[in-house]
Amino acid sequence: MTGSPAEGTTHVRVRYGETDQMGVVYHPNYLVWCEIGRTELMRDLGYAYSDVERTGLRLAVAEASLRYVRAAVYDDAIRVVTRIDAVQSRTVTFSYEIFRERGDGSELLATATTKLIALDEHGATRRLPQQLLERFRDASTPA
Amino acid sequence: MTGSPAEGTTHVRVRYGETDQMGVVYHPNYLVWCEIGRTELMRDLGYAYSDVERTGLRLAVAEASLRYVRAAVYDDAIRVVTRIDAVQSRTVTFSYEIFRERGDGSELLATATTKLIALDEHGATRRLPQQLLERFRDASTPA
Amino acid sequence: MTGSPAEGTTHVRVRYGETDQMGVVYHPNYLVWCEIGRTELMRDLGYAYSDVERTGLRLAVAEASLRYVRAAVYDDAIRVVTRIDAVQSRTVTFSYEIFRERGDGSELLATATTKLIALDEHGATRRLPQQLLERFRDASTPA
Amino acid sequence: MTGSPAEGTTHVRVRYGETDQMGVVYHPNYLVWCEIGRTELMRDLGYAYSDVERTGLRLAVAEASLRYVRAAVYDDAIRVVTRIDAVQSRTVTFSYEIFRERGDGSELLATATTKLIALDEHGATRRLPQQLLERFRDASTPA
Repeated sequence: MTGSPAEGTTHVRVRYGETDQMGVVYHPNYLVWCEIGRTELMRDLGYAYSDVERTGLRLAVAEASLRYVRAAVYDDAIRVVTRIDAVQSRTVTFSYEIFRERGDGSELLATATTKLIALDEHGATRRLPQQLLERFRDASTPA
Repeated sequence: MTGSPAEGTTHVRVRYGETDQMGVVYHPNYLVWCEIGRTELMRDLGYAYSDVERTGLRLAVAEASLRYVRAAVYDDAIRVVTRIDAVQSRTVTFSYEIFRERGDGSELLATATTKLIALDEHGATRRLPQQLLERFRDASTPA
Repeated sequence: MTGSPAEGTTHVRVRYGETDQMGVVYHPNYLVWCEIGRTELMRDLGYAYSDVERTGLRLAVAEASLRYVRAAVYDDAIRVVTRIDAVQSRTVTFSYEIFRERGDGSELLATATTKLIALDEHGATRRLPQQLLERFRDASTPA
Repeated sequence: MTGSPAEGTTHVRVRYGETDQMGVVYHPNYLVWCEIGRTELMRDLGYAYSDVERTGLRLAVAEASLRYVRAAVYDDAIRVVTRIDAVQSRTVTFSYEIFRERGDGSELLATATTKLIALDEHGATRRLPQQLLERFRDASTPA
């Protein structure tokens, strides 16, 4: 699907252990769902992250920001929509919308962005492999 | 210590389960350390969060942002420095600096901010209790 | 399906954050998968745990035991098979087999059992509601 | 302290994120505290686990069992007492008692045991290094 912006959609079910005593999902877990979202988007793009890591490339989170709008609760059906916002030689920025699915529609629970930086096996920054960089660029959403 | 900006300092030791297969701390865990930091700052200010919740007030994270500078690794001695950046009638914003302690000094690993919103027991936004609001204001760092 | 032993089958994909620096899944996470397994089995039996809790009944883990045979790794497709081993007036014991799914078959990774005890909203032990107790008994696997 | 059974004592404060919507600590987290307990006992014995791993030896959990007696809650001061129960050429078994500390005493919350197996860097079982094996034996509690 070269040339068309990609959008990955992933579903997760809220786990009991993801809640806290406030009765809602503990806030750092949304970053976990973001990671699942970008993992599945990368898989859709033909780059399963487990394979990517085996080539010696690591994508480490350099920046993250989240806005929490409504609280997810136990057993909610969650939908994560992931897009690629920006690509540079060493970084790629993903954005996320996290929804609760209901029989009659869905509600926005949170939005987030994460900027990932390419590292080699020793943790030094490196360029994204040209092919992956182009795949990300093709799939990115025009600003 | 009315009138002087407060700064809370907390120490945590990196747990094995906080690492991931990249050999470093899994990035959402920094938000957990931030929470420990503000919990201890609030305790220093005379408002243990466990007591606060018993009064029916909840402080929920509404926004969070993080910058990851260097990776924490297993067994690192971590120091979290927490400050209050801004206080409004229904929100309070904390900022964090996360350091690795070494025998000969310390290194900045990450910075973060979180904006918390006051909720009642039913999850509706409410004003901060006047006394707590003033305590936060007194303790906040002038912008 | 009254009278026939029930077996719940659930699938989870190993998350990056579930790994540790040994490069495998951090061992407490298998208990999380067990919980997902029994949650889904209970849903199949007509007792979604989220509904059960709303009636004031809680099922708390009183005992757990696990044997780890092979290590799960990132991105593995995991299958959890859950059965009910024993039911008493106040307790129910679940057993689990955790497999890695491969194109050409599956491998046993771990086995586990957990004994859950019925609690009321104040944390005191109580009897299982008669209907649920009978549902569990009907679904249990003869020893 | 050659020849005298060792007992490691570690303190942890219950984190907000360790609770679940039942208002108590989510049960898999006790295994995390056990790990902290044995890490600190090993440090006391002169074998910081972070150093041990650097030599290529890994200690993986092969079996675990837990009994939950009373529930830990947010902000509890927890004390973990760790002992070595049994040592064999390739395995070492730790036992744990987990207490809540109160001003006027302490309450037993849980007991646990974990059997760890020695692995090399490729995940194959291996013998414990002779020196470590003897250190464990000296420190073990007579059955």
